[in-house]
Amino acid sequence: MIAKKDECTYKKVIQNADDSTDAGLESPASSSSSTSNIRGAVPKQAFKNYNSPVPGRNAAEYNMNHKNRGMAIIFNHKYFDAEMKQEPRRGTDVDSANLDRVLKQHHFDVIQHNDFCYNQIVRVIKRAAFENHDNNDCILIAILSHGNMGYICASDTKYKLADICNLLTPNNCPTLAGKPKLFFVQACQGKQMDDGCKIQTDGDSQMGYKIPLHADFLIAYSTIPGFLSWRNPLNGSWFIQSLCLELETNGKRLDLMTLLTFVCRRVAFDFESHTNDPRKDQKKQIPCITTMLTRIVLFSEKPKSNSKLF
Amino acid sequence: MIAKKDECTYKKVIQNADDSTDAGLESPASSSSSTSNIRGAVPKQAFKNYNSPVPGRNAAEYNMNHKNRGMAIIFNHKYFDAEMKQEPRRGTDVDSANLDRVLKQHHFDVIQHNDFCYNQIVRVIKRAAFENHDNNDCILIAILSHGNMGYICASDTKYKLADICNLLTPNNCPTLAGKPKLFFVQACQGKQMDDGCKIQTDGDSQMGYKIPLHADFLIAYSTIPGFLSWRNPLNGSWFIQSLCLELETNGKRLDLMTLLTFVCRRVAFDFESHTNDPRKDQKKQIPCITTMLTRIVLFSEKPKSNSKLF
Repeated sequence: MIAKKDECTYKKVIQNADDSTDAGLESPASSSSSTSNIRGAVPKQAFKNYNSPVPGRNAAEYNMNHKNRGMAIIFNHKYFDAEMKQEPRRGTDVDSANLDRVLKQHHFDVIQHNDFCYNQIVRVIKRAAFENHDNNDCILIAILSHGNMGYICASDTKYKLADICNLLTPNNCPTLAGKPKLFFVQACQGKQMDDGCKIQTDGDSQMGYKIPLHADFLIAYSTIPGFLSWRNPLNGSWFIQSLCLELETNGKRLDLMTLLTFVCRRVAFDFESHTNDPRKDQKKQIPCITTMLTRIVLFSEKPKSNSKLF
Repeated sequence: MIAKKDECTYKKVIQNADDSTDAGLESPASSSSSTSNIRGAVPKQAFKNYNSPVPGRNAAEYNMNHKNRGMAIIFNHKYFDAEMKQEPRRGTDVDSANLDRVLKQHHFDVIQHNDFCYNQIVRVIKRAAFENHDNNDCILIAILSHGNMGYICASDTKYKLADICNLLTPNNCPTLAGKPKLFFVQACQGKQMDDGCKIQTDGDSQMGYKIPLHADFLIAYSTIPGFLSWRNPLNGSWFIQSLCLELETNGKRLDLMTLLTFVCRRVAFDFESHTNDPRKDQKKQIPCITTMLTRIVLFSEKPKSNSKLF
C-alpha cells in the first residue's frame, strides 16, 4: 500500500527569502559557521591531526577524552535451548576472547555474558541504560549468535536488534545522548550465499540543542541482509577475526569508519569458504555497516591514570 | 521460523594449525602483509596523505585516477501518476539542480531523468550496466522521490532499491567490479517522526582474486527505516541540501564516509521541522548510511585534460 503523503512538506508555504531560512536553522550564516569549524578542525593534509578544537555542537570528532572509554558488553552464544534446534556455534569462544582482549586494549570495561536468554539480555541492557555514563565516551554491544533475516537468536528465542537498540536512545538513557552507541553483530541474516566473482585489479557554544533520538548509533553486521555469515571452528568468525585484527593494528590511529571499511576489505578479500559440500564451497562474504554517527569516532590512547579511577 | 543451521561452519573440521590457515587465506603471513601495506599506505599523522602506493588488492583507497570519474544518474520525481495518489514533491527540482552542479564539480558525467516510470528506470540502469566502465572510477545513482518502508516510488509504481542495486553487481556489470557503486536516496522510509531530544554538549600484484558480489556498494538513505524524510519547498530536502554543501565544501579533501558522517551531523543538528500542524512541528531527522565499501573513496581533483577526452 502506498501512503498518500510519505514525504513531508511544510504546511506553511514559505514565500520569501527570509522565511526560507527556517528560523535560522539552514541559513547561510549557520552553514558557513559550521563549515569554518570543520575547516579549523580538519586541517588539509593532516586529516588525522584534527583534535576537535571546537568541543560543542560542531565538533568533528566525538569527545573520547572522558575519564572512561565506557562499557563493552559481549553476548556470546554457543549453546541454545533444545527447542531452538540450533547447532552449537563452535569457535565463538575464540571470537569472544579475542574481542575481550582487543576492547580492553582500547580501555573498554568489558563484560562477557554466555548463552543468555532474551530476558537476561534485556535486563542487562536496561541496567546499562539506567547507569550514569557521564564519565564515559561511548557504549559498545557485541552479539555473537545465530540469526536470520531481521532476527538474532538468544538462547531461548529470537529477537530484533532494534528492540535492544531502542533501549539506549536518549529518552531511555540520557547520559549517553550525543555519544556513540556501537553495535557489532556476528550472525547470519538469511540463507543466501555469495558466489563471488573474480576480478582483475587495476589498480558553537555550550548551548543546548536538539538531536534526533536515533542519531549516534552504529550497527556493524557481519553480513548483508538475506545472507549467511561464516565462522571457522578454530579461528572464530571471519568478521570478528577481521574486526579484532583491524582494531589491534590500526585502532588507535584510524577512525572507526575507516577501520570498518578495512574490516570489509579483509572479510571480502582474505576469506573464502572451504567445505566438502560443493554447494557451500568457495563462497564469499561482505559485512554491512550501517551508521547514524554524526562525528568521527577515534579510540585514541587514554592516560593510564584514568583507568578505573572513578 | 528459526532455521536449523543459519551460521555456517566448515564441514571439514580443521584439526591442525596448517589446515586452519585455510589455503593461506587467513594465514598470519597474509595478514601481516596486508597490514604492512595499510601501514605503508596510511602514514601515521597524515591520514589524508596516503595515495595508495599499492594499487592492487590491498590498496587502502579505490583507484579514482581513471580517465573519467564515471556516470551519475539522477532520477528526479516531482509528479506521479494519478493512481499513485502522491502529492507533487515541491522543492525536488532544487535538489536535482544542486546535485547536478556539485556532481559536475566532482567530474561526474551527470544525466537527469524526470518523473520516470519503473520500466524506464530499469532500462536506464540496464543500459548503464551494459556500458564499458573500464575508464571510469565509479558509478553514482541518486533517487529523489516518495517512499515507504522498503519501497521507493517511480511515477507509476513502487519498487525496491535492491532491484536496482542488483543490476549493477559484478555478474551483471563486470567493468564496475571492484569499483564503488554509490546510491543516494532522498525518500521517506515510513510514517514515524523523530521527536528528538535536547542535549547539553560537552597491494599485492596484478593477480586476479575473488570478491563478494555485494561488495563495494554504498547506500546513503536520507532517513532511517520506518521514518519520514523532510523537504523544504524552496530549499530542497534537508538531506540533499546537506550532502551538496558537504560535497562542495569538503568533497575534494575528505573521504566519502567522513563526508557522510558530517552530512548526518548537518541533518541532525541544523534542521528541525517547522509547520502549523503541531503533530508535525519541531521534528528531527537522521540519515542512515549503509556501506559495503572495501576501500576509502576520495573524490580527488582530476587533470583537466581528462574531462570527456575519451
